[in-house]
Amino acid sequence: ARSGAPEDVRTALRGADKDDILEPTYPYRREMDGKVYDAEMDALQVGLARAQRWINDTGARIAIVFEGRDAAGKGGVIKRFRENLNPRSAHVVALSKPSDVEATQWYFQRYVAHMPAAGQMVFFDRSWYNRGVVEHVFGFCTDEERERFFGQVNGFEQMLVDDGVTLIKIWLNVGRAEQLRRFLARESDPVKQWKLSRIDIDGLSRWDAYTAAIRETYERSHSDHAPWTVIRSDDKKRARLAAIRLVLRQLAIPGLEVEAPDSAICGSPRAMGLA
Amino acid sequence: ARSGAPEDVRTALRGADKDDILEPTYPYRREMDGKVYDAEMDALQVGLARAQRWINDTGARIAIVFEGRDAAGKGGVIKRFRENLNPRSAHVVALSKPSDVEATQWYFQRYVAHMPAAGQMVFFDRSWYNRGVVEHVFGFCTDEERERFFGQVNGFEQMLVDDGVTLIKIWLNVGRAEQLRRFLARESDPVKQWKLSRIDIDGLSRWDAYTAAIRETYERSHSDHAPWTVIRSDDKKRARLAAIRLVLRQLAIPGLEVEAPDSAICGSPRAMGLA
Amino acid sequence: ARSGAPEDVRTALRGADKDDILEPTYPYRREMDGKVYDAEMDALQVGLARAQRWINDTGARIAIVFEGRDAAGKGGVIKRFRENLNPRSAHVVALSKPSDVEATQWYFQRYVAHMPAAGQMVFFDRSWYNRGVVEHVFGFCTDEERERFFGQVNGFEQMLVDDGVTLIKIWLNVGRAEQLRRFLARESDPVKQWKLSRIDIDGLSRWDAYTAAIRETYERSHSDHAPWTVIRSDDKKRARLAAIRLVLRQLAIPGLEVEAPDSAICGSPRAMGLA
Amino acid sequence: ARSGAPEDVRTALRGADKDDILEPTYPYRREMDGKVYDAEMDALQVGLARAQRWINDTGARIAIVFEGRDAAGKGGVIKRFRENLNPRSAHVVALSKPSDVEATQWYFQRYVAHMPAAGQMVFFDRSWYNRGVVEHVFGFCTDEERERFFGQVNGFEQMLVDDGVTLIKIWLNVGRAEQLRRFLARESDPVKQWKLSRIDIDGLSRWDAYTAAIRETYERSHSDHAPWTVIRSDDKKRARLAAIRLVLRQLAIPGLEVEAPDSAICGSPRAMGLA
Ligand SMILES: Nc1ncnc2c1ncn2[C@@H]1O[C@H](COP(=O)(O)OP(=O)(O)O)[C@@H](O)[C@H]1O
Ligand SMILES: Nc1ncnc2c1ncn2[C@@H]1O[C@H](COP(=O)(O)OP(=O)(O)O)[C@@H](O)[C@H]1O
Ligand SMILES: Nc1ncnc2c1ncn2[C@@H]1O[C@H](COP(=O)(O)OP(=O)(O)O)[C@@H](O)[C@H]1O
Ligand SMILES: Nc1ncnc2c1ncn2[C@@H]1O[C@H](COP(=O)(O)O)[C@@H](O)[C@H]1O
Repeated sequence: ARSGAPEDVRTALRGADKDDILEPTYPYRREMDGKVYDAEMDALQVGLARAQRWINDTGARIAIVFEGRDAAGKGGVIKRFRENLNPRSAHVVALSKPSDVEATQWYFQRYVAHMPAAGQMVFFDRSWYNRGVVEHVFGFCTDEERERFFGQVNGFEQMLVDDGVTLIKIWLNVGRAEQLRRFLARESDPVKQWKLSRIDIDGLSRWDAYTAAIRETYERSHSDHAPWTVIRSDDKKRARLAAIRLVLRQLAIPGLEVEAPDSAICGSPRAMGLA
Repeated sequence: ARSGAPEDVRTALRGADKDDILEPTYPYRREMDGKVYDAEMDALQVGLARAQRWINDTGARIAIVFEGRDAAGKGGVIKRFRENLNPRSAHVVALSKPSDVEATQWYFQRYVAHMPAAGQMVFFDRSWYNRGVVEHVFGFCTDEERERFFGQVNGFEQMLVDDGVTLIKIWLNVGRAEQLRRFLARESDPVKQWKLSRIDIDGLSRWDAYTAAIRETYERSHSDHAPWTVIRSDDKKRARLAAIRLVLRQLAIPGLEVEAPDSAICGSPRAMGLA
Repeated sequence: ARSGAPEDVRTALRGADKDDILEPTYPYRREMDGKVYDAEMDALQVGLARAQRWINDTGARIAIVFEGRDAAGKGGVIKRFRENLNPRSAHVVALSKPSDVEATQWYFQRYVAHMPAAGQMVFFDRSWYNRGVVEHVFGFCTDEERERFFGQVNGFEQMLVDDGVTLIKIWLNVGRAEQLRRFLARESDPVKQWKLSRIDIDGLSRWDAYTAAIRETYERSHSDHAPWTVIRSDDKKRARLAAIRLVLRQLAIPGLEVEAPDSAICGSPRAMGLA
Repeated sequence: ARSGAPEDVRTALRGADKDDILEPTYPYRREMDGKVYDAEMDALQVGLARAQRWINDTGARIAIVFEGRDAAGKGGVIKRFRENLNPRSAHVVALSKPSDVEATQWYFQRYVAHMPAAGQMVFFDRSWYNRGVVEHVFGFCTDEERERFFGQVNGFEQMLVDDGVTLIKIWLNVGRAEQLRRFLARESDPVKQWKLSRIDIDGLSRWDAYTAAIRETYERSHSDHAPWTVIRSDDKKRARLAAIRLVLRQLAIPGLEVEAPDSAICGSPRAMGLA
């Protein structure tokens, strides 16, 4: 993996301590303290349990989209959300690439099949935004298909929102050196090697193409009805707390007080300096 | 059934010959001649066979929506379309009322599941427009749900069309006396009695509510990208020919010449004096 | 098409009148009279309408499998069944070849998805028996897959039947010259040309392979709980009447008297001399 | 919750240390040491990662059924399995109670829809065995439906297995006092309160009915082709290690050595003294 990254990125890794944040623009220099994190997370888990009951009682429908570069921490965040939730009502949707028949259908069709019924939360681990970024960077879709996607996505989300679905879109943002660090960790960890797909490796040298595709995605799909929230995930702990806070506040459950997510690492693409 | 209709409608039926058109505003006084119809239909069937091959070869995706009051002839038109088509690629979708779980999902969700893949034609026998008319007239949806439906339907269809689906919306229009005649025929025909549902019977006395709901539906869902075509179906034969012509011309298959559908019975809601 | 058939088969066609039955072993020499057919069919349509109501009222679930060589008349029989049935409860299932993902799943999986809910009739136009015959003859499955199929099919059907599904399996049997006649008719009929698939053409010269595969299928899947009924369909009219009678009698609807299907053309594989 | 359990069960809880095993017949008196557990689990996670690659490479299909009384630890075991697996190929299936329409279909139908395609692992958190136990104990099914279930289940599983699906059935067995301890812990833990459903509470006083239903389920569905493995889960740590070992050994991956699961807590119903 290492050879796919430029020299300065590799340099950043050398001599870095496990808890050091590599990304120079990240607002903290070291990872959050584990004990503090645990205490805050525990409190948030209670909040999620209350949210679950409220969703169940009110018949609310929640869809949360998680996007981000490889190794940004999507799976890990979703795991903390679902840690104590009922698997019968809190689903993960992590679709594989479309079958040959699906590939010819309306692009959103196979995602629509998983939209929540009353009382359900659905966590999308990657989503229809594949077309905005990874499919584009790797040439799995044509430019025309991508244009069409951007022409539709806002309207599509508007419909879900108007229908009463609570749609929350989270983009996990990770720095280049941190991504490489995680790739290297995966490479040397027999448990995580599978996470390093061909797409990840090839993606290393396409950092800038990704950056451009992500920026464009923000510009074209950050809307009033379905805004993006960027969460910087160079520190996974802070990112997880921020994501749960963001969601709990969005749900606006009567009587549930939740601290605002840390605005130093969480905000609109513009606030985060990315659009 | 008879008692649900007002006196003048019932009078219109008396003494009418089988081939007489009852609706005074219909442009023809008698049903089309059977032989002429058969000849024209045969030619159109050849056109449909060519269309099928073209759809198959090009990977086109076709969705045709059939709406209209009870007894307007939706099923009959669809049957003539599918007469000689391959059941493996030409599907009818005639959904029953939603299950308890489906009823809580995004309204369009269960319809999306049936959208065509490459090479497929889908014939919707009733559709998402249930919410515009029958659900409204019978109180199966709230006013708010209906407003939401109208707020979404144009965007929904725009997406399908932008995605490359050929979407054709046909509204079969039948006069009040003709509808009653068909209901009475169903009532006395053991083969067709089932077609006379409680909704049909109760609908008889709600003619005006239907009329208003239909008019509003035209007004709110007749769009450039997915216009309605009204086909007057007081004469079923003429209606069937017009519907097939309409579809074949819309497909614009290279080298396939098709006569325009009869503009005296087929046109936009406005052209038909209904909007 | 003609060239795929042996000389004697082609000879049989020459000079034959439209109404002549070509198959020498068929018990009738000429097609049934049209008027008689119409009258009997009309009566049976009333029976089907009653059956539909009964199915609806009792919540019965009906699955009918139609198999037979190409041009045996499967689609035509199904059409007569559904002529006057409610499309919302009487479905045709005519699956295309499996998608790449489906091809790796349990063979019966995609068929199970279409099994009837309460009040529904499902007509399978081809079915899981593809594996017994066409997939085998054309090498779309391995011998091992086919063995597995035969090892499972009886148990699979037993489960449906035990669960209360009424499962009726009909094999339409057509003679070789008659099949060729129909192929030739398709070839020269622009409306039906599509029906002549590559598989049909190639199948002509594999008549005997088909015959052997069909015989084996009878032997291995004709069971007490889900027996095959063979209906000779050299005369389509007689075949349609027999099929509807067979089904209506099987349903055993209280108070509905139905004549037995003509035992000269309809019976178990053994009774028909095929096993 | 406490009041639903008999006096002696409640007594067993008093004065017990967190790490004490309550169940007198359990072969160990205290929970496994955390460090030892962590080390063994880490090694097994590597095994699972290898298994995933092997499944992916060979196109194997794996279905694992987890059953057990409430609070037996089904969800927790599944979580450890999926900890490091790819969510795109390792699915949990935790179905809610059937919709009104599903309730009328073939009982196995909605489960069949989730059977693995090539390269997939599916973890069933509860399964079709609901009918054998919980539906029976709570009267959600009739005796006749349950008989039918037992009449079908072996054949159903046989088909999956014959088709090449690796089917592994695990029953987590927990003692009565331990179950109560977990219920009480849930009751007082705001994060887990939701886990205490009405069915759990009501189930407390139906311990014996459960016991009988489970015993019968073993007797009637423990087969050569799809045997049950009982894992005693009074100590969750030991149970999780045993479950993963069991599965890894079953997969028999070339070159992957896995220690046998602890036979003191893991074996056939008979070996465990339960049948
Ligand atoms: N309770 C309901 N909620 C929503 N839609 C319903 C309900 N009852 C009936 N419908 C719908 O109303 C339409 C008209 O019903 P009906 O006249 O019985 O059927 P059809 O016109 O197809 O013969 C159908 O699409 C049906 O699904
Ligand atoms: N590659 C394939 N693998 C499996 N089944 C196939 C394949 N190609 C065709 N079939 C099946 O063979 C059957 C006969 O094909 P065909 O003659 O083209 O259709 P039909 O008889 O319905 O007109 C169909 O059920 C089709 O799905
Ligand atoms: N009315 C019902 N009919 C059939 N199954 C039901 C019904 N109510 C609950 N169940 C099933 O009983 C099982 C146990 O329910 P519960 O204890 O609430 O869930 P869990 O054990 O997953 O926390 C679940 O699989 C649920 O689907
Ligand atoms: N050929 C392809 N076409 C479309 N999407 C793909 C293709 N290959 C991989 N993907 C998607 O790209 C994303 C990243 O892939 P991976 O890193 O392999 O998980 C996943 O969502 C895949 O489904």
